[in-house]
Amino acid sequence: MLQYLPEIESPKQLHGMSSGDLKKVAAEIREVLCDLLSNRTAHFASNLGVVELCLALHSEFDFLDDRLIWDTGHQIYPQKLITGRFKEFERIRTRGGLMGYPNPNESDYDLFMTGHAGCSVSTALGLRSGDNLMGKTSNHSVAVIGDGAFPSGIVYEAMNNAKDMSKFMVILNDNEMSICPRVGGLAHYMDRLRANPFYTGLKTQVVDLLNKVPLLGDPVERLLAQVKEAAKAGFNGGMLFEELGFKYIGPIDGHNIPILKKYFRMVRETQGPVLLHVITRKGHGFQPAASDPVYFHTPPAFERDEEEGVVPKPSSGGTPYTNHARDAISFQMEKNERVVVLTAAMCQGNKLEPVREKYPDRFFDTGICESHTVAFAAGQCKAGLRPIVDIYSTFLQRSYDQIFQEVCLQDLPVTFLMDRSGLTAADGPTHHGTFDIGYMRIFPNMVVMAPGDANDLGAMLDFALEHDSPCSIRYPKDTAALMTRELQPVELGKSEMISTGRDGTIVSFGSHLDSCQNAANELKQEGIEVGVINARFCKPLDEETFIAAIKDSPFVVTVEEGMLMGGFGSAVLEMANEHRLNTSHIRRLGVPDEFVQHGDRQELLDELNLTPKGIAKICREMSAASGVGEFQYE
Amino acid sequence: MLQYLPEIESPKQLHGMSSGDLKKVAAEIREVLCDLLSNRTAHFASNLGVVELCLALHSEFDFLDDRLIWDTGHQIYPQKLITGRFKEFERIRTRGGLMGYPNPNESDYDLFMTGHAGCSVSTALGLRSGDNLMGKTSNHSVAVIGDGAFPSGIVYEAMNNAKDMSKFMVILNDNEMSICPRVGGLAHYMDRLRANPFYTGLKTQVVDLLNKVPLLGDPVERLLAQVKEAAKAGFNGGMLFEELGFKYIGPIDGHNIPILKKYFRMVRETQGPVLLHVITRKGHGFQPAASDPVYFHTPPAFERDEEEGVVPKPSSGGTPYTNHARDAISFQMEKNERVVVLTAAMCQGNKLEPVREKYPDRFFDTGICESHTVAFAAGQCKAGLRPIVDIYSTFLQRSYDQIFQEVCLQDLPVTFLMDRSGLTAADGPTHHGTFDIGYMRIFPNMVVMAPGDANDLGAMLDFALEHDSPCSIRYPKDTAALMTRELQPVELGKSEMISTGRDGTIVSFGSHLDSCQNAANELKQEGIEVGVINARFCKPLDEETFIAAIKDSPFVVTVEEGMLMGGFGSAVLEMANEHRLNTSHIRRLGVPDEFVQHGDRQELLDELNLTPKGIAKICREMSAASGVGEFQYE
Repeated sequence: MLQYLPEIESPKQLHGMSSGDLKKVAAEIREVLCDLLSNRTAHFASNLGVVELCLALHSEFDFLDDRLIWDTGHQIYPQKLITGRFKEFERIRTRGGLMGYPNPNESDYDLFMTGHAGCSVSTALGLRSGDNLMGKTSNHSVAVIGDGAFPSGIVYEAMNNAKDMSKFMVILNDNEMSICPRVGGLAHYMDRLRANPFYTGLKTQVVDLLNKVPLLGDPVERLLAQVKEAAKAGFNGGMLFEELGFKYIGPIDGHNIPILKKYFRMVRETQGPVLLHVITRKGHGFQPAASDPVYFHTPPAFERDEEEGVVPKPSSGGTPYTNHARDAISFQMEKNERVVVLTAAMCQGNKLEPVREKYPDRFFDTGICESHTVAFAAGQCKAGLRPIVDIYSTFLQRSYDQIFQEVCLQDLPVTFLMDRSGLTAADGPTHHGTFDIGYMRIFPNMVVMAPGDANDLGAMLDFALEHDSPCSIRYPKDTAALMTRELQPVELGKSEMISTGRDGTIVSFGSHLDSCQNAANELKQEGIEVGVINARFCKPLDEETFIAAIKDSPFVVTVEEGMLMGGFGSAVLEMANEHRLNTSHIRRLGVPDEFVQHGDRQELLDELNLTPKGIAKICREMSAASGVGEFQYE
Repeated sequence: MLQYLPEIESPKQLHGMSSGDLKKVAAEIREVLCDLLSNRTAHFASNLGVVELCLALHSEFDFLDDRLIWDTGHQIYPQKLITGRFKEFERIRTRGGLMGYPNPNESDYDLFMTGHAGCSVSTALGLRSGDNLMGKTSNHSVAVIGDGAFPSGIVYEAMNNAKDMSKFMVILNDNEMSICPRVGGLAHYMDRLRANPFYTGLKTQVVDLLNKVPLLGDPVERLLAQVKEAAKAGFNGGMLFEELGFKYIGPIDGHNIPILKKYFRMVRETQGPVLLHVITRKGHGFQPAASDPVYFHTPPAFERDEEEGVVPKPSSGGTPYTNHARDAISFQMEKNERVVVLTAAMCQGNKLEPVREKYPDRFFDTGICESHTVAFAAGQCKAGLRPIVDIYSTFLQRSYDQIFQEVCLQDLPVTFLMDRSGLTAADGPTHHGTFDIGYMRIFPNMVVMAPGDANDLGAMLDFALEHDSPCSIRYPKDTAALMTRELQPVELGKSEMISTGRDGTIVSFGSHLDSCQNAANELKQEGIEVGVINARFCKPLDEETFIAAIKDSPFVVTVEEGMLMGGFGSAVLEMANEHRLNTSHIRRLGVPDEFVQHGDRQELLDELNLTPKGIAKICREMSAASGVGEFQYE
C-alpha cells in the first residue's frame, strides 16, 4: 500500500521530489501514524501537525551538515520515518525499539534527546556558535519550537542572547495549543499576530501607501519620517521578537510545502537571526484528532470506526494515583477555601479538568513555566493561601532553585504533588522521575513523603495542608494499590508497621508497598518470616522504628523507585551512621546510577527487582547470608 | 551629625515629609553607606542607586499593607535604614547582625529573602493573587527589579502570567548595568527606550501631529486609521512589555523623588499590570562609585581620600581559588582553541576580565540566564568545542534541569567550575553553595571533583578537558592552600594518599585538606597517628583505597564543606554498603540539615568543626571510642 516511505533511506531523496510527490509522502506518513495508534498509545496530534514542516525542512536543508533541533521531541515521528528508520518504526516506544523522542544513538539526524520543553533555541544557538568557532560557517542552525513551549523562560533567555547571529532560524510552530489550551499574554499576542495584515494579505498595500505619503519641511518632516518607520514597525507584527533582535517573518501556512520551501530559501539569504512564524493545526489530516487535539495528544490505542471516528481499545483496570490525587485535591478545596492548585501545562496529564471547571478562580495553569509556578505559589502562600503545586517529578526539576530559595529558605508551606515520579515507561529517560527523592530531601525544612497505597495519598495531602513547612508527596504513573489494613493516621516522621517477622524487615518508601507485602507472603510459605514497614516519610525518617529494625532484624531491605544515589536507602544509612549502627545487613533496592531506557513499565520494574518476585529473591539472598556469623551475602 | 535617620522608627514617618526633607534623608543614607564601606566589604553601588526610589516608595505606599519585593535583595540597605533597623545597621553582614539581604526574621517589611535574581515578579504576583483570594483587594503589590536581573527567564514567565492583574506594578530599575556591563538584545532594547520621544519630551508633539492627519474615504481611511494606531504604538515604546499585556510607563528619572511619587500616584489609578521604567545610576551620589560601578558593586573596605577618592584597605594575603581557576582557564584556552568559557553575569566575581580581553570570541557572558548558559554550552559541545561553565555553585542551581537533560543525558563533556561552593560567609544562606555535591553526583555520567589545594585545581581542569563525559569541580570562596607534596596525576576515580597512620584515617573531599593534615600533625604530637587521603573524586569514588581504609582503620572521618545529606560522606556510606562493610566507625563532617546563616567564614567553619582544631577533636573522640570492643563514641 505504501509506495514512497519504504523506499526513503535518506532525506536527501526528498530534495528532487515534486510538490505532488511530497504531498503523497505526507499522506503516507499520516497513514503510518494512524496505524501505529491502533497498536499502542503514542504522541499523535502533534506529529500529524508537523508532517509538512518536517518534509519541507528536509527537502530544503541537509541536516547532516545543517543543524535541526525539534523542541519537546515528541513531534519527531515524521523525521524518524524519513531518516532510515521506517522499518523499525512499528516498534517505537517498546523496550529495545525506537525511542518516542529524538535519540542521537539512533540517527545522526537526532542531535539532542529532548523531552523537556524550551531548550531547543539555546542548543541550536550553541551549535551555531560552535560551528562558527570550528570554522564551519556555511551551514544553518534551526530550532523548531511549539507555541506551548515558547513561554518557557529559557526561550527568552536564548533569544536575548542570539545577538547578530546569522544562519540561525527559530521556527515558531504555532498550533494555538500547548498540550492543554494555552494561557498567558504571549498566547494572546500570537492570536493578534495571526490577524495581522501580513497574514491577511494587506501588508504590501499598506507599505506602498506609506511610501506615497509626502514628506514636509523640517522639523515636521523629521517627525513624519519617524512616524512612517514606527507605523511600518507596528504593521510588521512580531515587535516582541524584533525588539529582541530577531527578524520576524510570518505567519505562514505550515501545511503548504511549496510555501514553506519558498520561505526557507528566503531565510537562507537573511542576515541576523530569524523567527519564522508558521501556523499548523494539531491533528491535521485526521479529522477526529484535529477536532480534539487535547484528547489526541497521547490517546490510548484505538480502532478506526467508520461511524464514530475512533473507538478506544479497552484499557486494564485499576484507578491511577493521578486520579486519586485529583480527587484528594478536590476534597481539600471543598473543605478549605484557602487551598489553591497550580500546574504547568499538565492540566490534562494530571486529570485536573474537573477541578479547573469547579474552582476556576483557585486553579492556576501557568503554561510551561515551572520556575515561575513555584515562585508564584510561594507568593500566594505568604499571603495566606495553601497552594498545591501539581507537576510531574521530572519537570519540577525546572524549579529546583525556586524550591530552594522561594520555598524552603522562607519555610513556606507549599505542597508539592510530584506525579509520574519513578519510571514512566514508554516515554523513557527524559520523562522518568527518578531524582526527586534526592533533590527534595537535601533542602532544609522540606518534608518528603510517598504514599504506600491509594489511601495514604489522601491522608498525606491532608497532613501536608495542616503542616507549617513545605511538603512533597511523590507517586508513580501507575494504578494505585489498596492495601487491606486499618489505616494509621499520617504523623510527621512516623512510619506504619504493616506486618512483623523475625527473619528480616522490608522498609518500603512509596508505591511498592503491596509488592513488599506480597513478597513477604510468598516467603512465609517457605518459612521465612519477614516484616513490612510502610516508611511514608523519607524526611524526617522514623528513627525509632528504623533503629529497632536495624538492630533487631537479621536483615533489612529498603525499597524505593528512585535513584539509589542520595535516595531513601541512603537516608537510612546516614541515620544509622549517626547512631553508630552496623549497616552491613542493609540492602537497598532502587534505580542504579544510569539512565533507565524506555519500555513497558513492568519490564523495567522486573529488571530492577521492584516486583514481589524480585523483592522475595533479594530477601532470600539476605536471609541465607544472615545465618552466617559475620554478615555477608552473594 | 545625622539628624533624620536616628529618628525614623517607621517609614510611615516619611509620609508627611517635604521633598526637601526627603532629600536630606537621602543624603544621610548615602553618608551611612559610605561609612559602612570604610569598615567592611558590602554591596555598595546598587544601594547608592536606589536611595530615592526606596524613599519615594515608602513615602507613597504603606508596605505593611501594600507588598514590596526587592529583587536580588542586595539593594535592601536603604530600606533597612528606614524600617527601624538604623541602630543595628553597623553590624550588617556580621555574625548575629543584620543580613545583607532582605530577611523576614528582621522585619515585616522584608517579605522574601532574595539573593538569586529574577523571582520578584513571580512572588509579587503570587502575593497579589493571594491577597485577592483572601479578600484583600485595595492594596498594591510592587516588584523592583534591576535591568541586570530582567533578562532572567523567570521574569518573562511571570510577566506572561500577569494577565489582567490590577494593582500590580513592576518597577524596572534601569541603571544600564548588571553587576557587569549588560549583554543581549534586551539591553540594546532598553538603550533604545531611553532614547524614545517620551523620555526626550517629544511624545506629546508627535501624538498631537498624528491626531491632525486627516482621514480619507474608505477603504483607504480604514488603512490610515490602522497606520495611525501602529505609529502611536511604535512611538509609545515598551512594545515588548505591552505585547505581554503590561502597560508600559516611562522611562522616568529615578533620582527625582517628587517625579517618582507623582508616577506612583498615577499607577495606583491604572487598570491592569504596569511596568514603570525608572532610570537610576549605580553609585549615584558618590563620585568614585558612579564612575566605576563594577568595582564598587562589592568593593573591599576603603578609606576616603581627598585626592585619590578612595584607598582600599589592605586585605589579607593568599591567592583565592577563583584566581587560580581563572589562570587555569586561561592556560587551557591558550593550549587548545576548542576551549571556550561561559559565565552568567559573574565575569567580575570570577575574575575573568583578562580572559574576556584576551579571547573575546571564546568568552561568553550570557547575563543572568543560567539555564540558557548550560544548554548553550551543550550545543557548543555537540559542535566540537570544549566549554567551561564558570558559575557560582548556588546560582548553577538555576540550570539543574539543563545539567540533567542537555548535558548528562546526552553525555556531553561540558566542564562545570563551581566557584563559591561551600560557605560564602557574609552573604549568608542565599549565597552559600552547599548543595552541589548532592545535586551533581545524582546524575549519571557526571564526574564530581574538588581540589585539595591550589595545584589540584589546574590538574583537575586539565583532566576534565580530556575526559569524554561531563565533569564538575567545586571550590570555595577562600584563599587556596598549597600543600607541600609531590603532586600525583589526576586520574579518574583515584584519590591521593597524603600520609598514612595506624590509628585512623581522614578522607578529605575538597579544600580542607590542609586542615586535615594540620589536624593529623597535631594528633601526632599526642601519639595518635592518623593518615590523610585527598579524595579528589566524589564520583566515581576511589573504591579500592576507601574499602581498605574502612576495613583497616580503627576509624574513618570524612570531611566536606557541603550538606551531609546526600553528600560525599553519604557516597562513602553507600559504596561501603554495596560492599557489605561495617561503617559504624565512620564519622562524617560537613553541613547539617539546616540553612547556615551569614557570618565570618572562620566563625562558620569553627561551628562546623571544619578547622584543624575541630577535625583533631573529632579524631580524638573517634580514637578514644575505637579502642573499646564494639564500636561506640560519645
